[in-house]
Amino acid sequence: MSYDPDNIFAKILKGEIPCHKIYEDENSFAFMDVMPQGEGHALVIPKLPSENLLTADADSLSELIKVVQKVAQAALEAFQADGVLVQQFNNPAAGQTVFHTHFHVVPRFEGVALQPHNGDMADGELLASNAAKYRALLET
Amino acid sequence: MSYDPDNIFAKILKGEIPCHKIYEDENSFAFMDVMPQGEGHALVIPKLPSENLLTADADSLSELIKVVQKVAQAALEAFQADGVLVQQFNNPAAGQTVFHTHFHVVPRFEGVALQPHNGDMADGELLASNAAKYRALLET
Repeated sequence: MSYDPDNIFAKILKGEIPCHKIYEDENSFAFMDVMPQGEGHALVIPKLPSENLLTADADSLSELIKVVQKVAQAALEAFQADGVLVQQFNNPAAGQTVFHTHFHVVPRFEGVALQPHNGDMADGELLASNAAKYRALLET
Repeated sequence: MSYDPDNIFAKILKGEIPCHKIYEDENSFAFMDVMPQGEGHALVIPKLPSENLLTADADSLSELIKVVQKVAQAALEAFQADGVLVQQFNNPAAGQTVFHTHFHVVPRFEGVALQPHNGDMADGELLASNAAKYRALLET
């Protein structure tokens, strides 16, 4: 497999398609998952192109995981979550569907099951509202 | 919640209980999960004490994710896997059961479902054999 520069996350990074952005720095970018597995489900991606963790630049991952941590901490507070699930899928056999390295950050709530990831698109206003909750905590 | 210095992973780090070690460096430690969700399921943990990603030292995470990457790359080769799942649970609501920061690295195979994580202990000889496969690729 080789990196497709027109994958959906590459297009988001290039600003060619819109997203509900929650964080950006020199190395990393974070935004709302439009097919959330739970309230506040976010994605954290490196700006450097790579298909997944198996081929990603190691130094870029070192920066990225700090952002994953910040987003997870913000998720707990923004949504009054009880826990946070961090997931990262490599290759189709592991459930990967977009071939640009990404970490899922999913707030978890006692007694609330995860939704399937192939579900319907979430309501745009709800995603915008949730993105604003993250940004209020992540903007410096 | 506060860090329990006698949690099971802390005891493994102190050498007070045995494990099937696959990698160790100044910051990080990796070993076989004794209740694997799939063939070759490994755990990667920081040596610095922290309950989970939410409270872990950020620089320690930066070093740790490089080891997660190495273990994931080794998993693909050692077990001829089709993909690799990386998972990290924070707080009981997210499925966390041991309160020392850890990343799960789970080889995935086409058509093979994950086993539940509360399953039986794996066979010790199989774990030893799988650990040796990792070590052969991770030893420098």
